Amino acid sequence: MASQTTAALQAEVNRLQLQVDTLKAEQGNEHISIGNYILARLAQLGVTNVFGVPGDFNLGFLDLIEDHPTLNWVGNCNELNAAYAADGYARVKEHSIGVVVTTFGVGELSAINGIAGAFSEMVPVLHLVGAPSTSQHAEKPMLHHTLGDGRYDAYIKAAKQVTAFQSLLSNKNDAASQIDRALTESITLARPVYLSLPTDLVHTQISSDRLHIPLSSTPPRNDPSVEAFVIDLIVQRFAEAEGDAIVLVDACAIRHDVRQEINDFLRKTGFPVYAAPMGKTAVDESFERYGGIYLGTITQPDIKEKVESAKLILSVGCLRSDFNTGNFSYNIPIRRTIELHSDHTKVQFATFPAIGMKQLIPKLTERLLFYRASASKIEVPRFIATVPEEAHDIISHTWFWPRVGKFFKPRDVIVTETGTANFGILDVPLPEKSVLVSQVLWGSIGWSVGSALGAALAAQEVGLGRTILFVGDGSLQLTVQELSVMIRLNVKPIIFVLNNSGYTIERYIHGKHRKYNDISNWDWPSLFKVLGDPEEKFSKTYTVHNKQELSQLLEDTTFAQADKIQLVEVIMDKLDAPRALQVQAELSGKTNFYEVAAAV
Amino acid sequence: MASQTTAALQAEVNRLQLQVDTLKAEQGNEHISIGNYILARLAQLGVTNVFGVPGDFNLGFLDLIEDHPTLNWVGNCNELNAAYAADGYARVKEHSIGVVVTTFGVGELSAINGIAGAFSEMVPVLHLVGAPSTSQHAEKPMLHHTLGDGRYDAYIKAAKQVTAFQSLLSNKNDAASQIDRALTESITLARPVYLSLPTDLVHTQISSDRLHIPLSSTPPRNDPSVEAFVIDLIVQRFAEAEGDAIVLVDACAIRHDVRQEINDFLRKTGFPVYAAPMGKTAVDESFERYGGIYLGTITQPDIKEKVESAKLILSVGCLRSDFNTGNFSYNIPIRRTIELHSDHTKVQFATFPAIGMKQLIPKLTERLLFYRASASKIEVPRFIATVPEEAHDIISHTWFWPRVGKFFKPRDVIVTETGTANFGILDVPLPEKSVLVSQVLWGSIGWSVGSALGAALAAQEVGLGRTILFVGDGSLQLTVQELSVMIRLNVKPIIFVLNNSGYTIERYIHGKHRKYNDISNWDWPSLFKVLGDPEEKFSKTYTVHNKQELSQLLEDTTFAQADKIQLVEVIMDKLDAPRALQVQAELSGKTNFYEVAAAV
Repeated sequence: MASQTTAALQAEVNRLQLQVDTLKAEQGNEHISIGNYILARLAQLGVTNVFGVPGDFNLGFLDLIEDHPTLNWVGNCNELNAAYAADGYARVKEHSIGVVVTTFGVGELSAINGIAGAFSEMVPVLHLVGAPSTSQHAEKPMLHHTLGDGRYDAYIKAAKQVTAFQSLLSNKNDAASQIDRALTESITLARPVYLSLPTDLVHTQISSDRLHIPLSSTPPRNDPSVEAFVIDLIVQRFAEAEGDAIVLVDACAIRHDVRQEINDFLRKTGFPVYAAPMGKTAVDESFERYGGIYLGTITQPDIKEKVESAKLILSVGCLRSDFNTGNFSYNIPIRRTIELHSDHTKVQFATFPAIGMKQLIPKLTERLLFYRASASKIEVPRFIATVPEEAHDIISHTWFWPRVGKFFKPRDVIVTETGTANFGILDVPLPEKSVLVSQVLWGSIGWSVGSALGAALAAQEVGLGRTILFVGDGSLQLTVQELSVMIRLNVKPIIFVLNNSGYTIERYIHGKHRKYNDISNWDWPSLFKVLGDPEEKFSKTYTVHNKQELSQLLEDTTFAQADKIQLVEVIMDKLDAPRALQVQAELSGKTNFYEVAAAV
Repeated sequence: MASQTTAALQAEVNRLQLQVDTLKAEQGNEHISIGNYILARLAQLGVTNVFGVPGDFNLGFLDLIEDHPTLNWVGNCNELNAAYAADGYARVKEHSIGVVVTTFGVGELSAINGIAGAFSEMVPVLHLVGAPSTSQHAEKPMLHHTLGDGRYDAYIKAAKQVTAFQSLLSNKNDAASQIDRALTESITLARPVYLSLPTDLVHTQISSDRLHIPLSSTPPRNDPSVEAFVIDLIVQRFAEAEGDAIVLVDACAIRHDVRQEINDFLRKTGFPVYAAPMGKTAVDESFERYGGIYLGTITQPDIKEKVESAKLILSVGCLRSDFNTGNFSYNIPIRRTIELHSDHTKVQFATFPAIGMKQLIPKLTERLLFYRASASKIEVPRFIATVPEEAHDIISHTWFWPRVGKFFKPRDVIVTETGTANFGILDVPLPEKSVLVSQVLWGSIGWSVGSALGAALAAQEVGLGRTILFVGDGSLQLTVQELSVMIRLNVKPIIFVLNNSGYTIERYIHGKHRKYNDISNWDWPSLFKVLGDPEEKFSKTYTVHNKQELSQLLEDTTFAQADKIQLVEVIMDKLDAPRALQVQAELSGKTNFYEVAAAV
């Protein structure tokens, strides 16, 4: 009897083992090319548009993209613009990734500033480079696009400076794991990564086994006992402050995906909330407990008083760069600050490594519900922007930003260029569910144009509304050709070109009347005609010289519907700038230049 | 008497010593700011135009350029174009240097592909980056344009991959020596170098002492005994070959400044001379002993036979990249080759380090005069390009290049873009004293546009004639905004835009009918109007659809005078390409892709 049972069990074991082997073999038999493996992973991550420029080392891979059922190839005009577009796409299409494909050497180096911007600003981007074959990497012939001295590793070394992970795929055995690691690092850390794909590996077959397990962007789990300790400590600080606390949201609340958690916290606890410039729209600006932008000494006085007088500041995902803090002018002592970050927590002077906010915030919400009644009573200034009455009809920044503020609608995606726009937008409340896309830390002029292309494509995919770009004439000249791609793809942003005859942000920092801050004046309204829409079938352009003309346009329902790509040239004074920029420039100038001038 | 003499001599010694001290003190008292020290060195090197884009960390330095009596600031539309322009400037303005000024992070990384191209192609360029102050470098605050993680050295590490020398100026004590070293390395090695200039050092005063000694680009002296040995060996090889030798000039004959020496050699000895693509115009193509372009299997048959049947090939400054050698298809055994390089010599299989051609060639000329009579009898094919009769009126590449060949004049500067133009120009003899500017090794599309701007400015300065650019529609889209700078500076290139509906060179390599090789069609003739010349005061544009229209234009004397900037849109078939490209693409395709396709 015992032996019968044993035999039966053994038979069952054998049967199951066979089944396991068969399943494994079947999975192992599902072969896929390395090129298609990458595309399968991208499709899993929700990518639908891939940016880049063809080059002879990536053409084989581009075949696969062009033939892919759900991926679309966006051929950009140049690689830097393509990188900017991938960055804008990733910013708007949360929980996905931006992808830019370039070619060895020439293409990838052209894109590197865009990739560095994604690193600086924590945007997940895959930079995929088509490279010479593995045998050419071994033999190092003097191919075109090489430095002529056999250093095939020079570009990956440069990429190492501005990406979180780099890999030159070199064999079929670890290609899948390298690809998975690159993508996982990118979505987990919110940073760009670099993959180099030799021509001969594009079609090399590998097992598709790993594709059965989707990639995860879940951050590492907090240690439960440390987390409990930290929560107790935070709750104690709230008790000591008697609930007189405010929340300050910043860049990393968006980049490290706690928008949902922090909004839940705010709605349940009732604490007032303010935003740093890079955290603008992390919390809806129409939210009743939202009080506006805090920016150190540049802050509007009523907001400044409320933030700085709170007994406790819960800072969520702060990123204390110069332009994000009024040139490091926060007047909030560390002893009154609790900082939540993606990978650590700070309570006053104490740092707790590896305690991340994604898991911490929901628990904090539960523990701080207690304060709802008192927190809800803390007064929050109403964040509004009144269109001022001015004696003249010139379109001043003081008037312009509140005025366009009235034009915005819920779900708009608003892209602002480094320069006057990044500062002008700060004092304007944006409608609910709108998204602000700006590059306050990296600040590469021209970025917003490529970024707006990517943002517009992503907005379509995630059900957001119009894409509205504010860019200066100087900045637009850097990356203007991408308007042509917008026309070709039939995306329909509204592009406000602030024509103020040059680099006004620079004039404020230094050289107000210097010739080097002048640029050529272009015929902006004719651009679309030249760049691919000769009969203006898909586009429309306007020039507004005064307040009345602009107001009239903004009230035009056809214009507001944004059924075509539209460009509005806004004539402004070359020495006018938003309030926040004027103060910031003075502070920056002091740090960089005026002290030098004094020392001479 | 003796003591009197001694005393007199001692007095004289004392007097001279005092004079030396006084002079030294006087020189030491001539203080100069570090910023102006750099400009003084650039002026000494004959630089008159400085390229770049303003950014807040370089504005203080730009003040000095704008105020300098002999330097002109060329504000480019973006940094990559500025780097291309500096490269083109340096190529045409021999014995000088190209200069591009950018700002920390964003600006310098945007330029890096242009700098890498200068490295690859051996062009002396100074990349000067305006950086945060020395105290900011020490404290590493989270400034805009930083990566947000305090790595202030990330960009210089990236620059290290593509420049011959890098220095972050950090104090007044060694600033002058670092600047001198950077410039000397650049002009001696013919490579780009990188200097980072913190804002506070721009106005820091240093001694101007070193400025009294000009920088020298003289290469190190050859060891006389080794040199004598090498010359004997070479002469012996010529004797064995009974003078049946030809000369092959290549890139480094131009880049390492032996144009004069090799022309002298050829005129005195009478040996036939041929050129590799990158050596085209190193020797005047109208020279009676010049036979045309050698490019391995892609060579015209009569030229190929002459080169490959010679008993000895004296190769001057060869650079054996794929596109410069017909995909490595030279049919010249090493045992029949003598290679002269800037820093070494090869005689058959033997290498002689540190024996450079600049000093070697004149000595070789003297020793080989002996062969003049026999060398002059070696037959050289007449290098001509006949305009073919074709049955149709379409502008084919076969017809186009010989036809424009007849339009060229002595002293023209001809710039060809990577793509069809780089190959089309090969079979066309260029007039005496004309200069061909192309980027065969690096091959970054869009480069020619910025480069033509720099070349045109340099051509004015060195007394060359018209600048004529050949660029494809796809390539021009990458860098088009620089046309605006050409208009502003009133340079007058003739720009032939080969409109063949996309990336034809890529079509030949792979994906002939793929959508990724398509681009938007622009209204090319309207570009100037939009980019700064609304009334066409300074510019003129044309579209030619057939042979007759083009011929008529080329015969128009007003057009040929090039008194305005001119753009000629040349309508061509999207699947047409020059002969050399067709063969090259097939060879490249085999190496990169078709073998892969076969393996699938």
